[in-house]
Amino acid sequence: MVRVRPIKSPAAQAEERAHEADHPTSLVAAFGVDQPLSLDCGVDLAPFQIAYQTYGTLNAERSNAILVCHALTGDQHVATVHPVTGRAGWWDTMVGPGKPIDTDRFFVICPNVIGSCMGSSGPASTNPATGAPYGLDFPVITIPDMVRAQAMLIDRLGIATLFSVVGGSMGGMQVLQWTAAYPDRVFSAFAIACATRHSAQNIAFHELGRQAVMADPEWRHGRYAEERTQPHRGLAVARMAAHITYLSDAALHRKFGRRMQDRELPTFSFDADFQVESYLRYQGSSFVERFDANSYLYLTRAMDYFDIAGDHDGVLAQAFRGIKTRFCVVSFTSDWLFPTSESRALVHALNASNARVSFAEIETDKGHDAFLLDVPEFLDIARAFLQSAGKARGLKGN
Amino acid sequence: MVRVRPIKSPAAQAEERAHEADHPTSLVAAFGVDQPLSLDCGVDLAPFQIAYQTYGTLNAERSNAILVCHALTGDQHVATVHPVTGRAGWWDTMVGPGKPIDTDRFFVICPNVIGSCMGSSGPASTNPATGAPYGLDFPVITIPDMVRAQAMLIDRLGIATLFSVVGGSMGGMQVLQWTAAYPDRVFSAFAIACATRHSAQNIAFHELGRQAVMADPEWRHGRYAEERTQPHRGLAVARMAAHITYLSDAALHRKFGRRMQDRELPTFSFDADFQVESYLRYQGSSFVERFDANSYLYLTRAMDYFDIAGDHDGVLAQAFRGIKTRFCVVSFTSDWLFPTSESRALVHALNASNARVSFAEIETDKGHDAFLLDVPEFLDIARAFLQSAGKARGLKGN
Repeated sequence: MVRVRPIKSPAAQAEERAHEADHPTSLVAAFGVDQPLSLDCGVDLAPFQIAYQTYGTLNAERSNAILVCHALTGDQHVATVHPVTGRAGWWDTMVGPGKPIDTDRFFVICPNVIGSCMGSSGPASTNPATGAPYGLDFPVITIPDMVRAQAMLIDRLGIATLFSVVGGSMGGMQVLQWTAAYPDRVFSAFAIACATRHSAQNIAFHELGRQAVMADPEWRHGRYAEERTQPHRGLAVARMAAHITYLSDAALHRKFGRRMQDRELPTFSFDADFQVESYLRYQGSSFVERFDANSYLYLTRAMDYFDIAGDHDGVLAQAFRGIKTRFCVVSFTSDWLFPTSESRALVHALNASNARVSFAEIETDKGHDAFLLDVPEFLDIARAFLQSAGKARGLKGN
Repeated sequence: MVRVRPIKSPAAQAEERAHEADHPTSLVAAFGVDQPLSLDCGVDLAPFQIAYQTYGTLNAERSNAILVCHALTGDQHVATVHPVTGRAGWWDTMVGPGKPIDTDRFFVICPNVIGSCMGSSGPASTNPATGAPYGLDFPVITIPDMVRAQAMLIDRLGIATLFSVVGGSMGGMQVLQWTAAYPDRVFSAFAIACATRHSAQNIAFHELGRQAVMADPEWRHGRYAEERTQPHRGLAVARMAAHITYLSDAALHRKFGRRMQDRELPTFSFDADFQVESYLRYQGSSFVERFDANSYLYLTRAMDYFDIAGDHDGVLAQAFRGIKTRFCVVSFTSDWLFPTSESRALVHALNASNARVSFAEIETDKGHDAFLLDVPEFLDIARAFLQSAGKARGLKGN
């Protein structure tokens, strides 16, 4: 049940990640001091860079580009081996030749978000003013900031209008922000397992994770890289908490129930007697290998701040008034982090704006994580939506 | 929203709690080396003690005693001011003169569970063999162990049959264990917001809390008392996680929504911008004042191990075969920690055993915590159940 892999030393992990933060194993778009990123907090970030991967070929009309937006702890390696963990791309069920996001027909762009740690500027990046990692000197960023940076990347790639913007969870928030901020640049939008604002319960879980990180004395107020420590215990606890929210009660029951780990009787100790305990410990400890603790603080914060209606006088429909984009919204029955009610609220607002929208609630017990898993009905919907939108866009092969 | 109270220094708090652990501000039943408590792990614990409170008067027939079983972080001070925090008893909506558990008519006994830290033997108690606190040398205990100790207390008080055993959450588990282990000693049983076994998701949340405590370097492998440290950051994180599970999404939304704390605009920082963050931080920090970190490990573990069916060849109904006890089972619609489905499974098993059982699912958005709150419909059911059982028992005034 629990995969056992050799774990690199924390120091080696940290070094690898630090290298990726500045010199990613992917394409990089660098923006100089003359091209600052205007952040919601009032700071102009410059210079900065966006790490990204592309797959497939941009057609002559520049009309077949799909932007894939990743979730909280995702990265640009949507269909490429992860350079630190050596694992397959995080969405290889969805993206690739012949897959729903078919790289034989579409030009797929997947950028690492601003604030993350895989090569786009973030707290783990070197601050040019000091030569040391930014740490908490990196400005607090928002979902609109991430999208603003992506728009600069799309400009740089010479793409006026994206054929589609696609993403789940925090990626879905970016999809919605794209349509709210740049409606004319998004032909179609596929928003999965997300919401137009973060709920109180979701903020609570994020705050719990941040407190776990910041409670770790090895965090050193965000300066762990220079002090050659790692808040790996705090970050592992944060990941364990988040991981519980990604799965449904039913999925945990199906996967683990009350089964014991390699034993028949309880040990009457604080060892991981139950399989679910040992699974969670593994999730926590393997996460710290690939992710930066400060980035975790920044990205959870960005999600907490997200509130499209709040940016439009409290009226969600206002954000989408007159929009021409074709929407597909998907939720999963057992997702309690972004429940169907959130998607319905979005769909109602889109309907009120006379937007073109289709909505599907997919029956599954796999919880929030379903969007990353092999759920055939979901993948079929993705394929059908992009095919139909492609026809409307006049793309060849549709 | 957030009550601000002067917080004692961690050292002063620790000293007060250490004193309560051995010398509680309540009654104490001491059991000597000749009266060991046989634990499920195989250890005979001796000497040991049970701290308890009583309210009201035992009648001449010794037939009006109600045992109140507390939840994870509860204690014997069900209707008495807490000696460390100075707060009112934890169930003063339920227990007191004229209340549903009417201390003018019933003799109420509320013991602190074995493994806790308010005067019953537990990891914070002094180990007579060493003169230092047990710490992790205290044997791992189970819900059946708690109940076995309570039965010894009831013997000591000269009570053959309890008129009722009442409790919610972990208290409800004790209620069910009482009926499974001592069916002839329990005339009626009121099991609230509980289950006959801990689910995988619940084990996961507990494991998260334990990892948060044990990740705190101040925990010192459980020897913090002697080393004069306190794993208060880890314990606060554990409490924050647990607290989220005690409330419903709807309750968090109603109480806090996305409202900011004493500000109108985000600070773009990691301060507690949202009310829900500041509330959670308060819940975490006030908890460490009154509770022992090792006890938190032991009691969560006891809940995880609980599985009545597992103790009866996997057949739940077997546990209740031929039982004469009158049951009342209550769940709350918005309780996602112990959802109604768990109570229904219990009720089905009781029905299959031909037990006398009534069941109510109470409509409320207050989540698991509803059993501790002023929910009139729930309190009315408690009153009616005890009145009807009292009549059957031939108690005066019924």
